Amino acid sequence: MSQKTKLNYVPSIRRFPSYLHIIRAFQRTGEPYISGTWIANELNLEPIQVRKDLSITGIVGKPKKGYPVDQLIAAIEHYLAWDIEQRAMIVGAGNLGSALTGYQEFRNHGLHIVAAFDSDPLKVGKTIHQIQVYQMNQLKEIVERMKITLAILTVPSPYAQSSCDAIIAAGIKAIWNFTNVKLKVPDDVIVQREDLSSGYAILSVMMRTKAKLS
Amino acid sequence: MSQKTKLNYVPSIRRFPSYLHIIRAFQRTGEPYISGTWIANELNLEPIQVRKDLSITGIVGKPKKGYPVDQLIAAIEHYLAWDIEQRAMIVGAGNLGSALTGYQEFRNHGLHIVAAFDSDPLKVGKTIHQIQVYQMNQLKEIVERMKITLAILTVPSPYAQSSCDAIIAAGIKAIWNFTNVKLKVPDDVIVQREDLSSGYAILSVMMRTKAKLS
Repeated sequence: MSQKTKLNYVPSIRRFPSYLHIIRAFQRTGEPYISGTWIANELNLEPIQVRKDLSITGIVGKPKKGYPVDQLIAAIEHYLAWDIEQRAMIVGAGNLGSALTGYQEFRNHGLHIVAAFDSDPLKVGKTIHQIQVYQMNQLKEIVERMKITLAILTVPSPYAQSSCDAIIAAGIKAIWNFTNVKLKVPDDVIVQREDLSSGYAILSVMMRTKAKLS
Repeated sequence: MSQKTKLNYVPSIRRFPSYLHIIRAFQRTGEPYISGTWIANELNLEPIQVRKDLSITGIVGKPKKGYPVDQLIAAIEHYLAWDIEQRAMIVGAGNLGSALTGYQEFRNHGLHIVAAFDSDPLKVGKTIHQIQVYQMNQLKEIVERMKITLAILTVPSPYAQSSCDAIIAAGIKAIWNFTNVKLKVPDDVIVQREDLSSGYAILSVMMRTKAKLS
């Protein structure tokens, strides 16, 4: 799959967690099939959009019956690679790092935060949500010992690039970047930047549009 | 603008904060025009995508010259309504609430967090990043006095709906929901749910795809 193709799927991929959430809830009813139209109504989407999105995972609904629930969940989880355990570390054990460490939902997605790092000696040796905080110079050692494959970067922006460099030097190939810095990384390192401003942009446009309509 | 039309723009709106970020940086060079192709390269997008996105704001580039920088910034800010001050409150002064209160970037977008609320008596009366924490039963009084128009909901999920009800009773019409609860609200209340799982879904697919390619 080329980079181009992948980018086209981004809006669909963003929706998959919501699909999973409601299909898992539906699974508890014991019904073996779920209708695309029902999913569409729940998520306020067009049925055609739901069919297109779900087709990316390779699953096809049956006419009049819908999608087989268990297979649909498995297909989405497999597409998202949420059926594989990822071991992650928090780099920057401040408020945001602590909040993410305590975010229960991640465990349902195979994401296990197993260590945290901070440069503040007052934080090192403490725990956040039962996760030990290590000092930055232990990064490489802990990454290897705990088989960590993903770094979640939550340091203040001025420390973003230097922390990123240390993360890469420790052998990590994937970084979830919560800072507002565009990180410089080698070609073989994946970075996903989480931009809270994007969410606010959507909210802000909705507020403005409503104001105009009324 | 209908709900349908608006939804089609969501991926573009998500990109506007990144556009603004790099165009503002470019503005400091003093050059009066910025090229769409240059923006595309900086953000790793196709030039045609950039032109389409920016056309939503009503601005059109000049052949060979590009976009007038100052007008482009003003057009994006106006489209996002980031040229209007929004006064917001944090409801739930835990780790995530504190992290958001300290997020400097919001001020550049016209978003001012002016109060925080929590049900924990140990937090009430304290401050987080210079913002006062009030008790929940002061919600309506403070919303009116401080002219607050937006609630940022960061309580633990079991308290999400009851807090939401209190927010709406205080007269708020827009909620930025950081919980994983699908809130029940009247038709005239806007909710934007910030789903961290969506970002992780994209990261996870990128990690899997890379693994397959190598």
